[in-house]
Amino acid sequence: MARFEIYVTYRKGIFDPPGATAERALQNLGYAEVEQVKIGKYIQLEVADGTPEARVREMCDRLLANPVIEDYRIETAGEA
Amino acid sequence: MARFEIYVTYRKGIFDPPGATAERALQNLGYAEVEQVKIGKYIQLEVADGTPEARVREMCDRLLANPVIEDYRIETAGEA
Repeated sequence: MARFEIYVTYRKGIFDPPGATAERALQNLGYAEVEQVKIGKYIQLEVADGTPEARVREMCDRLLANPVIEDYRIETAGEA
Repeated sequence: MARFEIYVTYRKGIFDPPGATAERALQNLGYAEVEQVKIGKYIQLEVADGTPEARVREMCDRLLANPVIEDYRIETAGEA
């Protein structure tokens, strides 16, 4: 089978609630060196051999990411 | 500032509800080539220059990941 890794992040300018919460929580715990935390999704996808990246992109647009508020990056992780 | 990227995934054998849901949903949408979907977290952390990775590991153990059910991997993403 083929493996893809997908990194979903909030688009520039879109508020990132989990990231903002973690950022404040870390600072409250005493980690004053923390400047920014962003939390997105890390998706590991296993598909049948020969599945083209365009097909994975379609899955992202339709279901795995929300193109209105999120960006994503697809990486080929090779055969498994 | 220094940047780290953290990849949080469910530990082997721990049920991954968002991954299982996305897997079934994609198959229902007609993506029969989908074999497995795992959904974890992709954290981008910006900290003050000189922050050692051990300190980031401590933040993961205390707040960013749940060591009971999750594994994580830290990568240095360089200066920003």
